[in-house]
Amino acid sequence: MWQPDRLSNQPLYQQIADDFERRISYGEFPPGTQLPSERKLAEQLGVNRSTVILAYAELRALGIIESRTGSGTRVSQYKWGVTPKHTPNWHRYVEGGTFLPNLPFLRRIREALQQNSGLIDFASGELGADLSPAKEIGALIAENPYIEYLGYDNPQGFVPLRETLVSYLSKYRDIQTTGSSILITSGSQQSLYLITQCLLTPGDAVAIEDPSYCYSLPMFQSAGLRLFRLPVDRKGVHPDDVRALYKKHRIKMVFLNPNYQNPTGVVLDEKRRAELLDVASELGLPIVEDDPFSLTAYDGNPPPPLKSIDSVGSVLYIGSFSKMAASGLRVGWMVAPHSVVERLADARQQMDFGLSVVPQKVAAEFLGSAYFQPHLERLRMQLLFKRDLLIEALEKELPNLVSFAVPQGGLHLWCKIIPEVNDHKLLEEAIRRGVIFAPGSVYGSDSGYVRFTFARAKAEDIVTGIAKFAAALRAVLD
Amino acid sequence: MWQPDRLSNQPLYQQIADDFERRISYGEFPPGTQLPSERKLAEQLGVNRSTVILAYAELRALGIIESRTGSGTRVSQYKWGVTPKHTPNWHRYVEGGTFLPNLPFLRRIREALQQNSGLIDFASGELGADLSPAKEIGALIAENPYIEYLGYDNPQGFVPLRETLVSYLSKYRDIQTTGSSILITSGSQQSLYLITQCLLTPGDAVAIEDPSYCYSLPMFQSAGLRLFRLPVDRKGVHPDDVRALYKKHRIKMVFLNPNYQNPTGVVLDEKRRAELLDVASELGLPIVEDDPFSLTAYDGNPPPPLKSIDSVGSVLYIGSFSKMAASGLRVGWMVAPHSVVERLADARQQMDFGLSVVPQKVAAEFLGSAYFQPHLERLRMQLLFKRDLLIEALEKELPNLVSFAVPQGGLHLWCKIIPEVNDHKLLEEAIRRGVIFAPGSVYGSDSGYVRFTFARAKAEDIVTGIAKFAAALRAVLD
Ligand SMILES: Cc1ncc(COP(=O)(O)O)c(C=O)c1O
Ligand SMILES: Cc1ncc(COP(=O)(O)O)c(C=O)c1O
Repeated sequence: MWQPDRLSNQPLYQQIADDFERRISYGEFPPGTQLPSERKLAEQLGVNRSTVILAYAELRALGIIESRTGSGTRVSQYKWGVTPKHTPNWHRYVEGGTFLPNLPFLRRIREALQQNSGLIDFASGELGADLSPAKEIGALIAENPYIEYLGYDNPQGFVPLRETLVSYLSKYRDIQTTGSSILITSGSQQSLYLITQCLLTPGDAVAIEDPSYCYSLPMFQSAGLRLFRLPVDRKGVHPDDVRALYKKHRIKMVFLNPNYQNPTGVVLDEKRRAELLDVASELGLPIVEDDPFSLTAYDGNPPPPLKSIDSVGSVLYIGSFSKMAASGLRVGWMVAPHSVVERLADARQQMDFGLSVVPQKVAAEFLGSAYFQPHLERLRMQLLFKRDLLIEALEKELPNLVSFAVPQGGLHLWCKIIPEVNDHKLLEEAIRRGVIFAPGSVYGSDSGYVRFTFARAKAEDIVTGIAKFAAALRAVLD
Repeated sequence: MWQPDRLSNQPLYQQIADDFERRISYGEFPPGTQLPSERKLAEQLGVNRSTVILAYAELRALGIIESRTGSGTRVSQYKWGVTPKHTPNWHRYVEGGTFLPNLPFLRRIREALQQNSGLIDFASGELGADLSPAKEIGALIAENPYIEYLGYDNPQGFVPLRETLVSYLSKYRDIQTTGSSILITSGSQQSLYLITQCLLTPGDAVAIEDPSYCYSLPMFQSAGLRLFRLPVDRKGVHPDDVRALYKKHRIKMVFLNPNYQNPTGVVLDEKRRAELLDVASELGLPIVEDDPFSLTAYDGNPPPPLKSIDSVGSVLYIGSFSKMAASGLRVGWMVAPHSVVERLADARQQMDFGLSVVPQKVAAEFLGSAYFQPHLERLRMQLLFKRDLLIEALEKELPNLVSFAVPQGGLHLWCKIIPEVNDHKLLEEAIRRGVIFAPGSVYGSDSGYVRFTFARAKAEDIVTGIAKFAAALRAVLD
């Protein structure tokens, strides 16, 4: 976001007017665009409302914008030509399309984080800069900066990365596979997207965990899928529920995140895993196993994935670099029968022409390097440390007001607020006090749950953050 | 593709049988999967058909595969358990989905190139390794290998890249814009994809050039759009045709590639540009301007884009790193009103969570570096040189059999074969003789056109490649 220069000789209102004039003349805000209200713009730019009033008055005087009571301030229609000319009705185009926008809560969180970089961030589900192996990755890049060929890569993914993943999957996840069964995607996210677009048809029923990360993704609805819930208890989902949903709705696929589930942190029980695979093979039902968190297991011993005990081939397995190393690299992978990999690679070629070779090369080097194992060990220690900081702070600040299970891996703590509380009010109050979190309803649960990501914030901010959160909660409860 | 080891003591057929057993047991080929015919597999592995017959016999003896006359060879259903277990019917899933597969010709080209890396490649629409600035990019990476933060990036794109593009667009494309009007995508491809998914609704009519790159993309059909044609003559599309399509079909958007159009190489006439913009503003009709080739203009003077003379804001402008530097980096950009950029960034966050920061950093450094201008100058000279090699070879080998206009920029030569010829036969014959090209029907034209990309093949292969092509054409015509 552009900000006026407080040290300049030019008055703030004039800087703001000039900036808008420039943006409007460049087409960033076409004729007819609704501009922010005076109050909102003042907040965004961190200036007084009177400054914005002066800036808008200046633009009105130039005929660039128009204000009408009731309908706010808009860019003028007929400034830019002698004859009436028509800018496309972008508003209508933007409202169209089959792809649904993100949830309002997620857009609000993104906006708040972009506007105020000082917020203590318990909302972004990723590692903080302190936990990411940026130095190690930089060192690897420095050692071997050259890329021989920069042409369109194989849409299935960079071959050396797929070969490295064959060893990685065997060593760390007990999965035996071949390079031609692996598809590299832009994180696990794109694997999920490709599955919804290419293997399922609008109207198909699918089962997802409740609560679940999948609820945060309107992409399931955009693909026209009907979603059915599998309640997650302390041992994960129940195989009988899968069978019942199949009977009732002929579900076509089951999406699971069995290890350190997002958001609950729950690990799917061993007995239930075996039963689930039996149900799946009995019904010929595919299971998508989304497994981004396993290698964060604090004791270094994550349960083996469903895929490793899947003798029938029911499981599409998805892994990612994001939660164990660096989400900004955008490298994920899917292990699937060759026919599925081929179909998805073909479709993604049309969507984005494949992934950049550069991050794939970096990921391959890091996974195969001597830095990887020590990074994991440090990551686990640090996550455990941050988790405990968070728990201590919650117990100190909010005794009897919150309840949670202690996760043994992953980045999140799932927390029930004991008295009834309104998600929306709590979030706004927290933002006002300088802290942000992910409301439980994002994951499909009822109001009154909170997901705290403890991996993102700096250790020294966790205690302060929870103090601010506690103050916000008390203010809302009052 | 796995290949047997000819130096091993183990017989070839045994190696093949072992490899299949492993792949089948790992789930790459689930029960029920159809295996390649003996003839096809022999071709793929470069062995005698009798070797494959022995390998399949071995696998049949182990009960791993079954052959039935008429229905070929399949992986056995009931090998893997005592009770009948069911692998999901992957075949049915793969046939489902709303996203259409690539055109058969494009899949055939990809397969042929993967199987035989020795083919002389006039089909892949990109720069060869000799024209890509891999060394310069390597040097820039080596100078500055460290990335500070590896978290999820802004879904609109890496801020320093957007800032660099503001200067780049002003300097090279005469486009004045702001960082907040730019969306970074995985090449121009993803910009096109996002437009079809987010700004258009199934059933909408859109206009595309005839012939056009867009015809090679079933993504338009996958999005449920109705496509109408704007014939491209020597001066590009005709503004009257746009008006007529609007009257008749209420087209919602026009997709154009005005400079060195793919596949024809045509430059849209200056007068028509002005008229087109008048039509667009009169009708409130958006134009998508896809502009990947401009900076390859052999004389260094590409025509300015429509966007630079668009005073109303009708144009969504798309650029790309691919054709002027490195397609494998996967960096493209769109310039659009802020509301459009926001909508597309929001949707793409759900699809792939944004682009990797690494290639974005590399692209920003390269575009802002002292390497960029000399790279462009060398690229233009080399493209001109390769274009002339191709034309000379065509004139020598196929006088009177081909006709074409000489392109002044871009990577392709669009060529009409004068006697009637079948695309499919010509392609197969060419592949057999060691050369590959893109049949014109991929771009929506009638049979009997060929797109030769002269940027990809090595200079020394161009003459040989055309000799092989000429032999193939003569063989088909006989
Ligand atoms: C369960 C789960 N799956 C998938 C993702 C997507 O992550 P990425 O695309 O970075 O791998 C996330 C990220 O929050 C997640 O929590
Ligand atoms: C006209 C045109 N637009 C877009 C693209 C997509 O290229 P990229 O996504 O690599 O920028 C191509 C590639 O062939 C093209 O020719």
